[in-house]
Amino acid sequence: MAATTKPSTPTPLPSTVTLLIVCPDQVGIVASLTSFVVKYGGNLRDVDFHTDHEEGLFLGRLEWGLDKFTLSRSDIRPAIDGLCSPLGGRYELHFSDQKQRVALFVSLQDHCMLDLLWRDRLSDVNAEVALVISNHETLRGEVEHYGIPFHVFKITKANKYEQEQAELALLKEQKIDLVVMAKYMQIISDSFLRSFPNAHARGVKLIGATAHFATPELDAGPIIEQEVVRVSHRDTVDDLVRKGKDVERVVLGRAVRLHLLHRVLTYGNKTVVFE
Amino acid sequence: MAATTKPSTPTPLPSTVTLLIVCPDQVGIVASLTSFVVKYGGNLRDVDFHTDHEEGLFLGRLEWGLDKFTLSRSDIRPAIDGLCSPLGGRYELHFSDQKQRVALFVSLQDHCMLDLLWRDRLSDVNAEVALVISNHETLRGEVEHYGIPFHVFKITKANKYEQEQAELALLKEQKIDLVVMAKYMQIISDSFLRSFPNAHARGVKLIGATAHFATPELDAGPIIEQEVVRVSHRDTVDDLVRKGKDVERVVLGRAVRLHLLHRVLTYGNKTVVFE
Amino acid sequence: MAATTKPSTPTPLPSTVTLLIVCPDQVGIVASLTSFVVKYGGNLRDVDFHTDHEEGLFLGRLEWGLDKFTLSRSDIRPAIDGLCSPLGGRYELHFSDQKQRVALFVSLQDHCMLDLLWRDRLSDVNAEVALVISNHETLRGEVEHYGIPFHVFKITKANKYEQEQAELALLKEQKIDLVVMAKYMQIISDSFLRSFPNAHARGVKLIGATAHFATPELDAGPIIEQEVVRVSHRDTVDDLVRKGKDVERVVLGRAVRLHLLHRVLTYGNKTVVFE
Amino acid sequence: MAATTKPSTPTPLPSTVTLLIVCPDQVGIVASLTSFVVKYGGNLRDVDFHTDHEEGLFLGRLEWGLDKFTLSRSDIRPAIDGLCSPLGGRYELHFSDQKQRVALFVSLQDHCMLDLLWRDRLSDVNAEVALVISNHETLRGEVEHYGIPFHVFKITKANKYEQEQAELALLKEQKIDLVVMAKYMQIISDSFLRSFPNAHARGVKLIGATAHFATPELDAGPIIEQEVVRVSHRDTVDDLVRKGKDVERVVLGRAVRLHLLHRVLTYGNKTVVFE
Repeated sequence: MAATTKPSTPTPLPSTVTLLIVCPDQVGIVASLTSFVVKYGGNLRDVDFHTDHEEGLFLGRLEWGLDKFTLSRSDIRPAIDGLCSPLGGRYELHFSDQKQRVALFVSLQDHCMLDLLWRDRLSDVNAEVALVISNHETLRGEVEHYGIPFHVFKITKANKYEQEQAELALLKEQKIDLVVMAKYMQIISDSFLRSFPNAHARGVKLIGATAHFATPELDAGPIIEQEVVRVSHRDTVDDLVRKGKDVERVVLGRAVRLHLLHRVLTYGNKTVVFE
Repeated sequence: MAATTKPSTPTPLPSTVTLLIVCPDQVGIVASLTSFVVKYGGNLRDVDFHTDHEEGLFLGRLEWGLDKFTLSRSDIRPAIDGLCSPLGGRYELHFSDQKQRVALFVSLQDHCMLDLLWRDRLSDVNAEVALVISNHETLRGEVEHYGIPFHVFKITKANKYEQEQAELALLKEQKIDLVVMAKYMQIISDSFLRSFPNAHARGVKLIGATAHFATPELDAGPIIEQEVVRVSHRDTVDDLVRKGKDVERVVLGRAVRLHLLHRVLTYGNKTVVFE
Repeated sequence: MAATTKPSTPTPLPSTVTLLIVCPDQVGIVASLTSFVVKYGGNLRDVDFHTDHEEGLFLGRLEWGLDKFTLSRSDIRPAIDGLCSPLGGRYELHFSDQKQRVALFVSLQDHCMLDLLWRDRLSDVNAEVALVISNHETLRGEVEHYGIPFHVFKITKANKYEQEQAELALLKEQKIDLVVMAKYMQIISDSFLRSFPNAHARGVKLIGATAHFATPELDAGPIIEQEVVRVSHRDTVDDLVRKGKDVERVVLGRAVRLHLLHRVLTYGNKTVVFE
Repeated sequence: MAATTKPSTPTPLPSTVTLLIVCPDQVGIVASLTSFVVKYGGNLRDVDFHTDHEEGLFLGRLEWGLDKFTLSRSDIRPAIDGLCSPLGGRYELHFSDQKQRVALFVSLQDHCMLDLLWRDRLSDVNAEVALVISNHETLRGEVEHYGIPFHVFKITKANKYEQEQAELALLKEQKIDLVVMAKYMQIISDSFLRSFPNAHARGVKLIGATAHFATPELDAGPIIEQEVVRVSHRDTVDDLVRKGKDVERVVLGRAVRLHLLHRVLTYGNKTVVFE
């Protein structure tokens, strides 16, 4: 490969900390949290919250700058814990300058994977694809071209449990923050394809894709993002597959991005997306 | 009411005739039909066809001008019959200058109805709402304001059969060309509403509406048009209902329009929409 | 008109107060405002803010419930004034149970007006169309059908100043909170139409509408909402006009709604829409 | 690179021929062309036409299968010439089994290029990227990874004419059918960026991209495809650039595809897109 110059240097991301919290609704949570931030000189970048009245739950997201914040990093977590534990829910704390490591699970199709591998695609949210795991060799060339390790775990009925344990060990060893089942989308594609005869059968005018968190049952986890695309009787099954792939990668890309920005909060089988 | 002047006189629609046909696929149909039109001096306005390879069917739409067409109206139908009958399918013939008479079935909600009642809404496709049928008095004022007859048929278990026969007799007597179940959309709305708890349950990001032909089973007929609208956790159930109504009337309006322009061809449980 | 039963009684809107504020950015504003609300027992419903880094401005919206708020209404305004005045910007305070009175300016076209006149259309945001002003008699029947006063001010070169003064006096006397220039949209439509030859000239694939605040120059005020609709070479000029009207009323409806919910904050020639 | 198996073998494309024609409108063109096809046993796959009444022009597209067509390939062109030349316009004839060779012009940005380089991206329309031309070395690695020749022509004021002649010679020698200025999109991006201050200045809610044929003046050629994406005050300039790139590559991808399927007909400064 010839010497290449980088087309642009991304501006360094200013360090912020994001708090995601879900707990029983009660008066004064927002004031309490924002006052805490201000007390230590933090500059609030975003405050977003939602009350689920049916469930009686408060769901919130706060992001503030660390540049003038007078609490040291090691002191932030215990302080937040003292503030949030009495609220009786759960919370997450994320520092924007800690690069997030993403593992991709793929199979034979590359359309969702490539969008995520592209240079700069995740770098502006301070994340990187740390490794790719597959059950086939097919995409090794595409992945290694980007300098990313490619691991194959061939799974049979006999070795399924051992292989899955080995995968989990690799994810733990590699300190992976997020697993994206680009492979999983392929399964959706299959069900997609299987549903085309029916879709065709009533002359459907829209097809769609859904990105959601994984659960043991396929297609049943909390929804992060959805999109549709218009189709007509002129579309052949090949056209439907192509349009389906295009909408899938758009939807998966948006969902991954929202998650890496800590804008997705799940509770029960629902999500709140703080956009 | 004070004297009002009409804001605009629609330009008179030039007379055309539209042929819709579905038959077993065979070589030469398009050439045969277009040659027929040209032979008698007709000016082709639109030729659109589709082959359903799975079913082995040809589906087509031809529209041509009548101004220089040398066949008289009374001769067109037998001539087309001689051309199309040997093809072994079915066809429809529509003259654009024959005003189409639409009957609306409504219930309590007016959102879909009003879009169709508005002056100029159907006039540019040379159609008119000839009457409105309801099982409630609720919307009488809205309808009669537009000078359109409003008929109430109260249906109970006891009188269901007789009332439906009376409705059918009225439709026949009034030479109705198209029945729009704006009332039917309300039923969809109800199922819509009933599905909101579930939709909420997974944090759905899109809700949609479908306009389709009626069949004995609800929500099962051939689809004419579909559309979705984006929702979020910020939307209350009231917001979902409002957005649902808005997308319903857009979808129903488009479907009615496409049908009145003879652009919708059904076969089996499918549609082809010639746009 | 026959007796009609109301299809649904809207649930009474719980009383809230909304604060909109724009001021120079400074640390602690959100904490200060939220602490104030909590101090007097207010239940925060929404906190949304934005920092315009170029301009160095803070723009925010807070909404809280009044049911358990211990400050009386007459004491809220001075308290907020004491809090916000030192920040050196401007703010607005809105009580949700004070019905907002809207005046519509119309001319000959009814498509934007009708969407706003519909019963329930504005009632769920606790607003009502208090009167309609026009320079023509054309739409009197449509408006009076809804029981809304219709005023005609015929404007000539000679009487322009006097008539505009009379209109302003009427608006003041009627305590109008918001003027919607549905008439103004017609002017946009005209420029729309005038631009069609050019649009046609390059085979444009999208047309759009913009709802914005009025300024002395047409089409130059801060933008509230925009939308586009797909067109093709198959669309005649009549089709473009119809599609243009449809997208206009959707855009105007959304913009009016956002404004009545006090979600639109203007500054300079820009808007922030808190959705 | 490890051995890879192809995930799917695309079904071979059946051979068809497509005729695109623009000429003065006259009665009988469609009948004449379709009769010609049928006379020689051709199976019509698509007939689409449009009349531009302002210009008095007929614009049409016919596609038919060659499997049972009894005219040999060498005889088709003269026969079509005999049919179309008297109509006084121009026409193009395309055989679907002749692979189309595409040249990409790129500069520093890869987002539009990568979508077109992907394996299978153009193969299903029987086209291939034959070479990439750039004025920088930057993207050489990305391109050569796909086994595609990468040519750099560094252009200065002094050598501009000679270099452009050399580029043209290369395109001719390589029998290129279509040149895609992915580089050109970058220029649009720049103007895009330059327009952001203004866009920001009124709080624009939509940004868009346009794919059009190149003319000596930038952004002035006939439009093939357009799309918009929703933005808000929350979007930073970086977000706008990212969203702008995403919509650009979608629009360019669709436009290239439509062109390679011979669905785009230009005349004057307009297009008709036969979808």
